[in-house]
Amino acid sequence: RICLPAVCFVWQIAMVILFGVFIRYDEESDEKGWHEFKRSHNITSNIENDFYFRYPSFQDVHVMIFVGFGFLMTFLKRYSFGGVGFNFLIAAFGLQWALLMQGWFHSLDPVTGKITIGIESLINADFCCAGSLIAYGALLGKVSPVQLMIVTLFGVTLFAVEEYIILDLLHVSLDAGGSMVIHTFGGYYGLAISWVLYRPNLNLSKRLNGSVYHSDLFAMIGALFLWMFWPSFNSAITNHGAGQHRTVINTYLSLAACVLTTFAISSMGQKKGKLDMVHIQNASLAAGVAMGTSAEFMITPYGSIIVGFCCGIISTFGYLYVTPFLEKRLKLQDTCGIHNLHAVPGMLGGFVGAIVAAAATEEVYGKEGLVETFGLSGKFENRSMSTQGAYQAAGTCVAIAFGLVGGVCVGFILRFPLWGDPADDFCFDDEAYWELPEDEETIPPVLEYNNHMINKHQDT
Amino acid sequence: RICLPAVCFVWQIAMVILFGVFIRYDEESDEKGWHEFKRSHNITSNIENDFYFRYPSFQDVHVMIFVGFGFLMTFLKRYSFGGVGFNFLIAAFGLQWALLMQGWFHSLDPVTGKITIGIESLINADFCCAGSLIAYGALLGKVSPVQLMIVTLFGVTLFAVEEYIILDLLHVSLDAGGSMVIHTFGGYYGLAISWVLYRPNLNLSKRLNGSVYHSDLFAMIGALFLWMFWPSFNSAITNHGAGQHRTVINTYLSLAACVLTTFAISSMGQKKGKLDMVHIQNASLAAGVAMGTSAEFMITPYGSIIVGFCCGIISTFGYLYVTPFLEKRLKLQDTCGIHNLHAVPGMLGGFVGAIVAAAATEEVYGKEGLVETFGLSGKFENRSMSTQGAYQAAGTCVAIAFGLVGGVCVGFILRFPLWGDPADDFCFDDEAYWELPEDEETIPPVLEYNNHMINKHQDT
Amino acid sequence: RICLPAVCFVWQIAMVILFGVFIRYDEESDEKGWHEFKRSHNITSNIENDFYFRYPSFQDVHVMIFVGFGFLMTFLKRYSFGGVGFNFLIAAFGLQWALLMQGWFHSLDPVTGKITIGIESLINADFCCAGSLIAYGALLGKVSPVQLMIVTLFGVTLFAVEEYIILDLLHVSLDAGGSMVIHTFGGYYGLAISWVLYRPNLNLSKRLNGSVYHSDLFAMIGALFLWMFWPSFNSAITNHGAGQHRTVINTYLSLAACVLTTFAISSMGQKKGKLDMVHIQNASLAAGVAMGTSAEFMITPYGSIIVGFCCGIISTFGYLYVTPFLEKRLKLQDTCGIHNLHAVPGMLGGFVGAIVAAAATEEVYGKEGLVETFGLSGKFENRSMSTQGAYQAAGTCVAIAFGLVGGVCVGFILRFPLWGDPADDFCFDDEAYWELPEDEETIPPVLEYNNHMINKHQDT
Repeated sequence: RICLPAVCFVWQIAMVILFGVFIRYDEESDEKGWHEFKRSHNITSNIENDFYFRYPSFQDVHVMIFVGFGFLMTFLKRYSFGGVGFNFLIAAFGLQWALLMQGWFHSLDPVTGKITIGIESLINADFCCAGSLIAYGALLGKVSPVQLMIVTLFGVTLFAVEEYIILDLLHVSLDAGGSMVIHTFGGYYGLAISWVLYRPNLNLSKRLNGSVYHSDLFAMIGALFLWMFWPSFNSAITNHGAGQHRTVINTYLSLAACVLTTFAISSMGQKKGKLDMVHIQNASLAAGVAMGTSAEFMITPYGSIIVGFCCGIISTFGYLYVTPFLEKRLKLQDTCGIHNLHAVPGMLGGFVGAIVAAAATEEVYGKEGLVETFGLSGKFENRSMSTQGAYQAAGTCVAIAFGLVGGVCVGFILRFPLWGDPADDFCFDDEAYWELPEDEETIPPVLEYNNHMINKHQDT
Repeated sequence: RICLPAVCFVWQIAMVILFGVFIRYDEESDEKGWHEFKRSHNITSNIENDFYFRYPSFQDVHVMIFVGFGFLMTFLKRYSFGGVGFNFLIAAFGLQWALLMQGWFHSLDPVTGKITIGIESLINADFCCAGSLIAYGALLGKVSPVQLMIVTLFGVTLFAVEEYIILDLLHVSLDAGGSMVIHTFGGYYGLAISWVLYRPNLNLSKRLNGSVYHSDLFAMIGALFLWMFWPSFNSAITNHGAGQHRTVINTYLSLAACVLTTFAISSMGQKKGKLDMVHIQNASLAAGVAMGTSAEFMITPYGSIIVGFCCGIISTFGYLYVTPFLEKRLKLQDTCGIHNLHAVPGMLGGFVGAIVAAAATEEVYGKEGLVETFGLSGKFENRSMSTQGAYQAAGTCVAIAFGLVGGVCVGFILRFPLWGDPADDFCFDDEAYWELPEDEETIPPVLEYNNHMINKHQDT
Repeated sequence: RICLPAVCFVWQIAMVILFGVFIRYDEESDEKGWHEFKRSHNITSNIENDFYFRYPSFQDVHVMIFVGFGFLMTFLKRYSFGGVGFNFLIAAFGLQWALLMQGWFHSLDPVTGKITIGIESLINADFCCAGSLIAYGALLGKVSPVQLMIVTLFGVTLFAVEEYIILDLLHVSLDAGGSMVIHTFGGYYGLAISWVLYRPNLNLSKRLNGSVYHSDLFAMIGALFLWMFWPSFNSAITNHGAGQHRTVINTYLSLAACVLTTFAISSMGQKKGKLDMVHIQNASLAAGVAMGTSAEFMITPYGSIIVGFCCGIISTFGYLYVTPFLEKRLKLQDTCGIHNLHAVPGMLGGFVGAIVAAAATEEVYGKEGLVETFGLSGKFENRSMSTQGAYQAAGTCVAIAFGLVGGVCVGFILRFPLWGDPADDFCFDDEAYWELPEDEETIPPVLEYNNHMINKHQDT
């Protein structure tokens, strides 16, 4: 298996070269640039640097990407190393590639040919990786790290193009939390790949496709950090001031409501009314996904709660009935159930955003608030709110299309028999890619300790 | 057990309706309102939005509520799902109810009949839940989720009333970290409930009332996040500028001192001088509780260290001697020892705050600092510092009274035999409410792997 | 073992006295002082308080010290309590001592004889502890808590002196992330102590010197929090504005690149190309260490990536070949491999900083940027950039010297036979210092449950 080191080295060297050619600091992180920027904008205080508006949210998003997604995927009894470890690898690669791809489409200076980056670029790069990490959720335990690197390479590229079309061409309003561009795209991208990679004999690995008590607790760490920091995820790149403030409130409320309906449906769905940890870990997050577009809008506090209410129900139902159905009827194996956590709530969030946008009025937002929130200036000055709503809905469809078509294509690339994917009876098993420590059972500590005491006595 | 889904649904629908009727964005999160606010206050920069003063602390508090309290309660060997899971459920419910209850008493506009919310409301809602989560600590493993929902419903309501009396009527100075309103109240509330729910045959579940090696490590995650973020907890809603700055310094120092005396007493209390993980996880936090009121005052750095010094001793002694005494003599079963972590240190913190307030002088605070710190303007303009100290002490007594009386009443409600609480020999067991994964031991991974290799050979 | 409580009590009482004599709030945390400061500096907004520039980073650093270092050291199968618990103890002690020692050298007012502290002092105190916590990594499992307290007492003291020489006398530019003052010093300090404490019969404890599946996951929590928050670590005390902004970008990029080369070398180094969790947990952090000095400089994005690229390779090679070599040839037992994670990358970082400083030009930094970044004002006004580079290199050598000489001296102090260190066959074992819970294996939960059901039937 020389494949993984080769891919890592070649791609990382490519990053060095491409960063050397293209990437520069932006005016708020460049030493000389910031002094000039302050002068030219009459800024006297360093706290006006975009950094101080963004940094707390940035770190929360960073935690979601690495600990949140990483630990959420440790729930399998013998694939926890792979869950958190490969997530780490592909996110670290993906964010570098994302800085290049997103920069290419958004901040390439046509004169100098350079891309400038700042704190907002870092947040966007983390977001861009999230699309591929979501896709990993459907593939967990069934693919090799090299395959994941390929999923990420194409995932990030597709994301950047799709984002350009949705945000720049369709001028969809911000989608700051990425209901469309991140979750809908990432969800369908992963599902399409998984569909192409269908393994009819996966039940040979069935014994390992489940959790144990402590692996579920590790997954709960990931789930809670995602849940808690989702307000930061949705607000990280919103407009400063009231927009960022409101996004946090809406996401917070929606997520709280979602927890209650998740517990309710989870308990109803099981015989004896017992709760299922899988639902709690996953479905309670669906509200954050669904609020990705509309949290910045004036959706009202109770509107947010209604969205959360519905998402908890829909997502938990998905885990109970849709995922098994997809596996049996559509030949679609979705390890983490991203269909219920990302694809469907993301799509819903896109359409909710369309409706809320179409219903926006100057009375609620104020004249300048409306322009600012929906960016209806310049060549979009005359776009009506109902037209804006239609474009928002179109954006969601673009995200679905990119996910499905892109995923099928990447899936076929992954079927080449040279990427080192595990055999059907060797899935969900860290043995395949990791040096595992000896097992706990083989060293009963109490006995060891007794032996030790005996040895000690013999020594003396 | 149709009870839990029914309660979740009914209450969440009630939330939708009540939020629809009452809750609106405040002027700093409303799109139109913020533009008007900026104009009317001559604010030119978005960073003057309260959001940017509060958000980092808010997220830390949020982590404490969900990961801190949640994982601290995973220490039992077979109740970790219940510890972190039910904590999640009741906090998510509680914070919605808290926004309504606290808003009703603090920010209800008498003209429009609306409650406006912003980032500070979210922090206060998290705080308000904390009271009930503390109470959960005494009940851990002995009650059903429906009972916990009831504990939270009444806990949040009592909290809002008590807080109104202490902060608004007695005009106690801020109690920003809630020594009185959160910890004293929550501690005695939980103890009183637990006393009413005394189970004489609880020793039938004794085999599960303890930790295992890894469950203690999960609990240590919770303990450390509480310990690290306690400076944020105490400073989250203090006055901007020096007040918030000083609160962090005082809490940080006090907590550090507390760790050393906790280790010292823990080691002295055991034969052979060994340390007990229970003390480290819990008693080292007592200083944060005790600084909840006075951290904002000019208590001086060494004053903070003295408080931490004493709290580590008192709290660890409590775990060693008082909790066993309470169980034997007072028939009070306190699973997590909230008596030593919240009730007593909180009460101490209230009285320390009273003393420090009574000793405050214009020489130390400056004229405007004194007014600002203790809010001695308007109708409280002429209150002397010694009077203020007396009111602070009275506030602590109100918190104790609300906790004890409220807890006894709620305890009797919980004794109705329809809430599905576990049998005496089925406490501390996740089996009661959770679908548990099969056990680790039943699948020795090494053997599995060998079998797998054999299968593979047979296949080929 | 009366030793630990005695040390804790005596030292904590000393802290109370010393803080009482020396430590006061600085002008931005003192109630009266801040009002005067605002007036005298014409500041109208509280958000100009240094607190708001620093607090988010401070909390991230705090998490790194307690959860990051703490959980990274839980990887041993039966020393997780000691890893996270003793880390907690010595950090809590160390930060108090650090406030005194660093304050003595940096902010002692010669007139009043007082040391003033603010948010930056707290960050520096956390940093100062980090040196001793790094040293703990080499000693993990082989020393008693009292020995660790001594390591910390002298470690913090040496740190403060070394920092004074490097930053104030040599006027090395900031070293904000502490490549030299923290990592190089801490690394060599720990290695020197470990070398003096060499145990020829340590293989008697060999059975416990390794991880189990779940302990590696706990360690991964620590590793990820270190990795994610390293941008905060390096930027916490940099210059406001562009400096802090740029430090984050550089550290983020460098760390991302480091992950890829770590995975590559880890896979190449093992037969069958399997990955080793030890490398992923540790070597992927080396880039953060190496960027500690130069992240604030205009090292360019691709420069950062190159540093990360090299560090992943060097550090992983270290774990594969250098650590075993050191143990066999140099009689140096380094439990966590701090040689590869801190000592060598820190030294590299110091020299990289020297080169980047020597290459700095007014063209890149701007005139005022150059002065501000390298602090070339006052008596250092005429220092040329190449001279500055030479001083940076000299600073690295000072850090190495302090680490080695100080470590050897402290090592000999630790060899007095009165500190209660564990026997050679009792290392890496929590039994020595902790009350351990009964073992999981002794209570097969399924059987318990069945028994319970039988009991229940008998009861009814």
